[in-house]
Amino acid sequence: MTSLDHTHDPAARSWLDSANDAAGDFPVQNLPFGVFRRTGSGQAWRGGVAIGDQVLDLDLLAGSALMSGMPGIAAQAAQAASGQALNPLLAMGRPAWMALRHGLFALLRDNAALTTQNALRGMLLAQSDVEHCLPVQVGDYTDFFTSIDHCANTGRLMQVVGSGADPVLPNFRWMPIAYHGRASSLVVSGTPVRRPMGQYRGADSSTPVYGACLRLDYELELGFVVGPGNDQGSAIPLAQAEAHLFGVCLLNDWSARDIQGWEMAPLGPFLGKNFATSLSPWIVTLDALAPYRCAWRRDADAPEPLVYLDDAGVRTAGGLDIQLQAWLQTAARQAAGASPVRLSQTNFAHQYWTPAQMLAHHSVGGCNLLPGDVMGSGTVSGPGQDEAGTMIEITCAGRQPLTLPAEGTAPSESRPFLADGDSVTLRGWCQRPGAATIGFGTCTGTVLPAHDPHAKGLP
Amino acid sequence: MTSLDHTHDPAARSWLDSANDAAGDFPVQNLPFGVFRRTGSGQAWRGGVAIGDQVLDLDLLAGSALMSGMPGIAAQAAQAASGQALNPLLAMGRPAWMALRHGLFALLRDNAALTTQNALRGMLLAQSDVEHCLPVQVGDYTDFFTSIDHCANTGRLMQVVGSGADPVLPNFRWMPIAYHGRASSLVVSGTPVRRPMGQYRGADSSTPVYGACLRLDYELELGFVVGPGNDQGSAIPLAQAEAHLFGVCLLNDWSARDIQGWEMAPLGPFLGKNFATSLSPWIVTLDALAPYRCAWRRDADAPEPLVYLDDAGVRTAGGLDIQLQAWLQTAARQAAGASPVRLSQTNFAHQYWTPAQMLAHHSVGGCNLLPGDVMGSGTVSGPGQDEAGTMIEITCAGRQPLTLPAEGTAPSESRPFLADGDSVTLRGWCQRPGAATIGFGTCTGTVLPAHDPHAKGLP
Repeated sequence: MTSLDHTHDPAARSWLDSANDAAGDFPVQNLPFGVFRRTGSGQAWRGGVAIGDQVLDLDLLAGSALMSGMPGIAAQAAQAASGQALNPLLAMGRPAWMALRHGLFALLRDNAALTTQNALRGMLLAQSDVEHCLPVQVGDYTDFFTSIDHCANTGRLMQVVGSGADPVLPNFRWMPIAYHGRASSLVVSGTPVRRPMGQYRGADSSTPVYGACLRLDYELELGFVVGPGNDQGSAIPLAQAEAHLFGVCLLNDWSARDIQGWEMAPLGPFLGKNFATSLSPWIVTLDALAPYRCAWRRDADAPEPLVYLDDAGVRTAGGLDIQLQAWLQTAARQAAGASPVRLSQTNFAHQYWTPAQMLAHHSVGGCNLLPGDVMGSGTVSGPGQDEAGTMIEITCAGRQPLTLPAEGTAPSESRPFLADGDSVTLRGWCQRPGAATIGFGTCTGTVLPAHDPHAKGLP
Repeated sequence: MTSLDHTHDPAARSWLDSANDAAGDFPVQNLPFGVFRRTGSGQAWRGGVAIGDQVLDLDLLAGSALMSGMPGIAAQAAQAASGQALNPLLAMGRPAWMALRHGLFALLRDNAALTTQNALRGMLLAQSDVEHCLPVQVGDYTDFFTSIDHCANTGRLMQVVGSGADPVLPNFRWMPIAYHGRASSLVVSGTPVRRPMGQYRGADSSTPVYGACLRLDYELELGFVVGPGNDQGSAIPLAQAEAHLFGVCLLNDWSARDIQGWEMAPLGPFLGKNFATSLSPWIVTLDALAPYRCAWRRDADAPEPLVYLDDAGVRTAGGLDIQLQAWLQTAARQAAGASPVRLSQTNFAHQYWTPAQMLAHHSVGGCNLLPGDVMGSGTVSGPGQDEAGTMIEITCAGRQPLTLPAEGTAPSESRPFLADGDSVTLRGWCQRPGAATIGFGTCTGTVLPAHDPHAKGLP
């Protein structure tokens, strides 16, 4: 488990002014990792840490004299984080992550020597001047289904049970349900998302058609990035699970509801999901999240958990108190300079299962996890009116389209699902009395029109 | 599409006697690719081609003077196939694969110059002296569900529909259903498979328990190995699909039926599958399979296919006529020297969908495939009594256990599902009038007892 130390002191400030902006995501208490290069430079991708409105170049840092003041393991960790993917850092484990965090904190806080500050200024690049690739090379991507509110909402909409019955399936309260996703189609925030072609049934037809997805949706999720893995055939006990979790990012599990609905019996989602999944460029470490832990949500009617999913650590502090939002900007609003519309506002603390339980469950049968694997939380929906993390919940499967208000020259628009040109942006942050406020940055993507190679008249 | 040429001439013989054994899998017409090293040598893994009872070392060949007689693309292909995974070869595409095939055929057939034969003898190692790793680095593994007989058999057993109704779900006849599998737990033939722990419900209980899987099963499948990939957002048309298919291997999709049954609503199989999936060490190229093509099975009651799943090539020759078997050997029979028992005997021609349709469907929504991706066919079951490719079908979900006859000192045994110490071996071969007989070798795995870290008394 992670614990509080001096790097979480809310009074700590950085010598870099932008890191002390109360509205910023990246104060010195955060220090999330990503992979970047100067936009359009064609340079090699390299690891970096977000601080204020800048990125600290870990490739430059790792090769500099500043590392001589750090323990050897921190210098090795900086080296491991300096390349085109963070996987070597992830494989090192928490002692290395902590040593690097402590080293970076010492370099960046306001009492660092002026010579240190001057040396570091040469290793900073404005975030507005950089582009990102995926921060990790993802071997396998798994998507969970851990929000009971999302489960109940979609269960009612899809009528997976008879009316009046519990829309939450019997297995949901016994384990964190999950399915394997597609690793190759994970993309970094900012990558456009092409509306998929596929087959689906119309509302009043038993026969499917081939066409462009008509029910394109987003899913507001978190992604959990795996650190050291486990041997095949050997489970990770719950008490050790967090030692295998490096950090957390925002994740948009774009979903084609019509394609998904037609294909998923009996083997689950496939083409309804695998056209694209967006990840935020920054991974906030589990260490940075130590001040925002909360108890595992245990509903009064929950069954007694099976042994491999239960321990005192999870019960007292297995959860994460992370505020999450999804925002929609349309092409028309963008053109008119109108503001985005908030789709969702919720909190990860509502989830029924914790990240450690997800990881323990994933490995209980001996499935081998590897550094850089990503586990999606599944949609984060809360119990409240505005807390749903998908369009399908917000619009009751399109039956009650969302109305976007007119603003300036932007006309009122209606959305049963996402339209071409729509951009969805996810945000997340942690905020608590007695702790700094830290954020995740954004995860965004814009919908491109479908491309049908079978359409008449196309070359 | 692949086509017939002189490398398929059934009269062709090799100067290597063991390649001319009529009962052998690897005559000169086959030339499958794998990755190997001398057993226990700790040497670097290198690519090889099976010929008779030998392996031709492509690392040695690629560096030899023999390559000077081949076109440049063949020499590049040999180089690309010589390393620790075949992915560089897969990325090159069919012209390179064909050039290398033609070059290898010329080197290994009986009219090769004696100096060539002598040089090649120094690059051969007996298959009995080598060990294998996975032949490709698999980025993503997808498992399909393309046998209508398996679908109907399991539909009836699982009562996914009411009695009397069609046990084949409505979407099955419209598309090759699939789900994402786990790439990290793919293992090469010969790797033991540990029985998974997990949660499942007993037959007469609504409450799950945590324990060792009680319903461990095999699935007799083929694996299709992807060559050149496609860009995200851009589909591979059916007519071009086979240009993206390198070859075919045997695949055992080990399944924990009790875990799978409890977890799979609504998102499909997860821990019931991801503890292990075995692949054969040799990939038989689609080019080698040209003589054994057959028409796409089109049942009289099949709906008219959607445009992206239909073309003349698939209709006339999209199928593959591959004989498949599964064999069971138990620990007791092994100890007594008794023979294995045949579990399954079927043919891939029974499958409802073809490999090209699987690939076109996989990419229709823009999912990007990469060289080395593996697509499992799903269980291959035929319509006949002995043609089921799983225990759950053979034993009616355990209600009619399989009886293994006594032999010598081996007692009669009963199997509702697989027991610890059981070995399952898959075999496959192609045999047609006017064509050589070529085989896939074997895909085997032995069940190890479960390991429960929560069991009392364990360290």
